[in-house]
Amino acid sequence: MENQTNIHQHDHQFSDAERQAVYKSIYSRRDVRGQFKPDPIPDEVLARILQAAHHAPSVGFMQPWNFLLIKSQQVKQQVHDLFKKANHEAGEMFEQETQRQIYSTLKLEGILESPINLVVTCDRERAGPVVIGRTHDMAMDVYSSVCAVQNLWLAARAEGLGVGWVSIFDRLELKKLLQLPTQVTPVAYLCIGYVEHFFVEPELKTAGWLDRLPLQDLVFFDQWENSHAEHEEKLVKYLSQAAY
Amino acid sequence: MENQTNIHQHDHQFSDAERQAVYKSIYSRRDVRGQFKPDPIPDEVLARILQAAHHAPSVGFMQPWNFLLIKSQQVKQQVHDLFKKANHEAGEMFEQETQRQIYSTLKLEGILESPINLVVTCDRERAGPVVIGRTHDMAMDVYSSVCAVQNLWLAARAEGLGVGWVSIFDRLELKKLLQLPTQVTPVAYLCIGYVEHFFVEPELKTAGWLDRLPLQDLVFFDQWENSHAEHEEKLVKYLSQAAY
Repeated sequence: MENQTNIHQHDHQFSDAERQAVYKSIYSRRDVRGQFKPDPIPDEVLARILQAAHHAPSVGFMQPWNFLLIKSQQVKQQVHDLFKKANHEAGEMFEQETQRQIYSTLKLEGILESPINLVVTCDRERAGPVVIGRTHDMAMDVYSSVCAVQNLWLAARAEGLGVGWVSIFDRLELKKLLQLPTQVTPVAYLCIGYVEHFFVEPELKTAGWLDRLPLQDLVFFDQWENSHAEHEEKLVKYLSQAAY
Repeated sequence: MENQTNIHQHDHQFSDAERQAVYKSIYSRRDVRGQFKPDPIPDEVLARILQAAHHAPSVGFMQPWNFLLIKSQQVKQQVHDLFKKANHEAGEMFEQETQRQIYSTLKLEGILESPINLVVTCDRERAGPVVIGRTHDMAMDVYSSVCAVQNLWLAARAEGLGVGWVSIFDRLELKKLLQLPTQVTPVAYLCIGYVEHFFVEPELKTAGWLDRLPLQDLVFFDQWENSHAEHEEKLVKYLSQAAY
């Protein structure tokens, strides 16, 4: 394991500017539902964000993902029909009339307007039945595909591309429509494209649906619900400060 | 929604150097199991990577995560005991003797050596029973917590911190040990600390367990298994080139 040639001798450290750039991608990333421009995405750029996804961590190095790129307007329309059906069902699920009212005004996808739709999947059988690290939690492979989504999302933001994750589908109908094999799960349906602008804040925050939770309330020490451990006052103070 | 004050007027674009820094974090991130140094992590740094996690995308903006920081050697030891038990079971699951042999030589966690262990959880009831975007896929909240893990992992890499995800536990026993409430799922158990060095390649690749898959074989166009669509030759060429 301690193979010398496999050790990062150079570039181990990030400069302050490089570190800031990573945080910039994290803080300025948005879930984009509108504002898509029809401009095509150059192949080099598309290849780069797919490579970023492909370099996500994966349990047992199984790399369970595939990337189904959808440009066909016909396929997009069929997927949009599935969304519309599920979204109507979703709107009815909220108990309060005000919630149903707000829900109906929300734009939750950009399937037809974004130049590229991308399905990130998980092949549960990619590396055989027994996978290192998946032996005691069979969901770990799906989590690997989610990590690929997040890598792609941050890379896309750095490329000036907006990404929106659409999850309001009957998954079985989506799987059937896309003709995915039995062992392949559709993990994320993404809409990708250049955008008019990025919002500063999540749209659901701006819409007054929910506020950002105070981070210091979400951090516990050694035991569940122990939020004010001895000697941790300084960390709690930092957590309570705005991130940027 | 088109609230002008919520639009990024500045900093919309990333410079080439900023973009490269994001890719650097993605490509040089490793799943660290050994090489941890005991050096404490400054509170400012720890707060920054937790803020990065907290700014992950979350379904319906529900922010379902908590962060349980474990420094107690006693708790770490109890968790390590759970790992040992599960890892022994795991080793027995591989069919081939050579696989069992290799498995037994792999170091798969740094629970006791890393100064901080961090449990990232998902509170399934954080935002009530009906959540925007979770109506048709109840796993979406867990995926949000996974996105938080990946944000933290990349931020940690930019801070020079190694992170390892340990998944070889009986999850119910882990949940009981950590006294998590019924509705809270432990999504990721992470070991975090400064490291002697980062490996250039994933350790399972170096060990000859699995190779990195050719990305161009994983990308399909409009239809499952359609890997050579018309007019996509240029993209396929880019996909087949090394990422870095």
